[in-house]
Amino acid sequence: MIEAPNDTVLVNVQDGVCRVTFNRPEALNAITRDAMFALESVTGQIRAATDVRCVVMQGQGDHFMAGGDVKSFKTMLDDEADRDVTAPQFEARLETVHQVIENMRAMPQPIVAAVRGAAAGAGVSLMLACDLVLCADDAFFTLAYCHIGTSPDGGSTFALPRTVGLKKAFEIALLGNRFTARDALDWGLVNRIVPAADLATEVDQLAARLAAGPSVAYAQTKALLNGALDRSLTEQLAAETAAFSRCTRSADFYEGVTAFTEKRKPEFKGDET
Amino acid sequence: MIEAPNDTVLVNVQDGVCRVTFNRPEALNAITRDAMFALESVTGQIRAATDVRCVVMQGQGDHFMAGGDVKSFKTMLDDEADRDVTAPQFEARLETVHQVIENMRAMPQPIVAAVRGAAAGAGVSLMLACDLVLCADDAFFTLAYCHIGTSPDGGSTFALPRTVGLKKAFEIALLGNRFTARDALDWGLVNRIVPAADLATEVDQLAARLAAGPSVAYAQTKALLNGALDRSLTEQLAAETAAFSRCTRSADFYEGVTAFTEKRKPEFKGDET
Amino acid sequence: MIEAPNDTVLVNVQDGVCRVTFNRPEALNAITRDAMFALESVTGQIRAATDVRCVVMQGQGDHFMAGGDVKSFKTMLDDEADRDVTAPQFEARLETVHQVIENMRAMPQPIVAAVRGAAAGAGVSLMLACDLVLCADDAFFTLAYCHIGTSPDGGSTFALPRTVGLKKAFEIALLGNRFTARDALDWGLVNRIVPAADLATEVDQLAARLAAGPSVAYAQTKALLNGALDRSLTEQLAAETAAFSRCTRSADFYEGVTAFTEKRKPEFKGDET
Repeated sequence: MIEAPNDTVLVNVQDGVCRVTFNRPEALNAITRDAMFALESVTGQIRAATDVRCVVMQGQGDHFMAGGDVKSFKTMLDDEADRDVTAPQFEARLETVHQVIENMRAMPQPIVAAVRGAAAGAGVSLMLACDLVLCADDAFFTLAYCHIGTSPDGGSTFALPRTVGLKKAFEIALLGNRFTARDALDWGLVNRIVPAADLATEVDQLAARLAAGPSVAYAQTKALLNGALDRSLTEQLAAETAAFSRCTRSADFYEGVTAFTEKRKPEFKGDET
Repeated sequence: MIEAPNDTVLVNVQDGVCRVTFNRPEALNAITRDAMFALESVTGQIRAATDVRCVVMQGQGDHFMAGGDVKSFKTMLDDEADRDVTAPQFEARLETVHQVIENMRAMPQPIVAAVRGAAAGAGVSLMLACDLVLCADDAFFTLAYCHIGTSPDGGSTFALPRTVGLKKAFEIALLGNRFTARDALDWGLVNRIVPAADLATEVDQLAARLAAGPSVAYAQTKALLNGALDRSLTEQLAAETAAFSRCTRSADFYEGVTAFTEKRKPEFKGDET
Repeated sequence: MIEAPNDTVLVNVQDGVCRVTFNRPEALNAITRDAMFALESVTGQIRAATDVRCVVMQGQGDHFMAGGDVKSFKTMLDDEADRDVTAPQFEARLETVHQVIENMRAMPQPIVAAVRGAAAGAGVSLMLACDLVLCADDAFFTLAYCHIGTSPDGGSTFALPRTVGLKKAFEIALLGNRFTARDALDWGLVNRIVPAADLATEVDQLAARLAAGPSVAYAQTKALLNGALDRSLTEQLAAETAAFSRCTRSADFYEGVTAFTEKRKPEFKGDET
């Protein structure tokens, strides 16, 4: 059973779907140190949870996540004037966030982001680390880091050039402009826009579908796509062969192939074997 | 002269254009072991064929290619219950397909895919390994591998993140949804849509144009673009210099430069020298 | 003070914005050897200029840049028939251009391209090496190299697959077709189209905004994005941490964080410290 170490993040597992909910709606779910540690713990647990076949990340209330906890940055800077002391403190914070991102990319389960309202700063980074994004038509986005005088973190500079191309990545990162759900769809940052009133239902349906999918194949596919730009063609082809071979050992492959030849829908179990 | 080892693939060379036709229209050109070996042989021959200046890949009948031969997968799995035995058999199959992909990417000639009707599974992989894609307005696509419980092969996980960005790549690979020619164009998977009735003519024109182009420059350009994401800026600039230098030794460069200064169209010969 | 070694390129620094103007309007700013050396010198000076916080690249007259000086190629080829002699001469030329590209990518300052009329060949390469591109609605583009029988240079084969995806990159490079501002926007090659009459004003506003931005953060962001595809996730996250840490030592970060908590606009100074 997956448990969050504090209530800044809520976790719920049902029918193979693990929902991770950022839970500081009074602050648009801006991510505190507690929330970072909670996310690090929860994503680490999910990586090893064999009963979880799909993950949903969402925000409590009307927003996804409004970014980092800038007020605490102010306190850190004011409490200690020596930047040789504060810089490592910031580094330690980022290490925690970055372990969350590593967990998300290494997780065998597909992750769906469900985005309503604001996704800003670290909220965009977390959204980018999800595999698929559904967003409400009222969603809006800004990378925002430049507005407080820093460069982006949370793997956003890893994800942006791999998702929207260099020119758009520079625009998003250097200008920090607010953009709409429609922009995000046109640029390839999100997969689908749905009316805000339908978001929960649409996410439920997608999550249920993924949780009923071939989990071994999904895990292999995720690893292949995430590593694709680090490998030459020859290396990637070898990785595809190893991944495919692994899948052929799974019960879901036998079921998938059998269902195909019998012209019926497959019933995948998602077992490791 | 290029010859296919069996009739699952047809090959025809005319006026510098080599047409490779998947030839199992009764099965939507689903790729059998014979077809894989034929493609491996044919693409290997084309790599070395100095009289071929452009390649066209197409399907016989109304479809491009409906994917792998899933029925034979079923037979393989049912004939032998020990997965330590069947897994290497699947690996051996993929090695053949992957040699086809290596041949296509290493080929000095530009490759145009002409897509009508269905491109599914391995059909999408082969299409992605072509340099340019023209498709009919009735074309439709699905990566499909997930439906039989396996991860994609044929270099599709190499090509997708380099072509459509990570979010769209995950969507195409994890969901396996069918999508239209219009989607494919919007996402950057195909270069142009033409009315189905015009596809043959449009492909002929494009192929003729490429076969009358500066073949040495095309070969260098292809190698530069295919390797671009494996190289740092400094490495890529060095590769561009070497490629440009090679081109300046060709008769086509002299012709191109001369034609430019004389304000006329160049007449390229495509000779190696 | 930044000075161009000859008048093929004009340089002007005002209010933190350095304008680099290609200055051969009578030849659509086609880039001569003199212009290459001037750009190499100027971009090298800008890299080290602490009073420059934003760079604008533009063409004198109605066009951005019409490409290389093909007439001089013709002279080179006609003056010396031995290609073992001419090839290294071309290589030497490219080395200069490529140092310009290295300077642009390594420059800590954001670079905005302001494109009117034609951007062809090396003009496209230079535009691609800028971080952001504003173009007039009358702008048009062609990579063009194939028309003189050579492969692209100037880092265009580095930038294209990182900006528009492989299929579009092949189309642009192999066909050399002319395309419009609208195409360039749709494909992600430019960031914004403005009416030709408004281009100067819009570029001024964007440049002023960037020159009033957090220069340390911009420099770190630029390095992160340019190197993103050369690094694994783990490497990029480490680079993000180091970059963020560097920013937290800057006065602009303190100002940005303070302004955020005080709900006012930050006033960045762009100092190194």
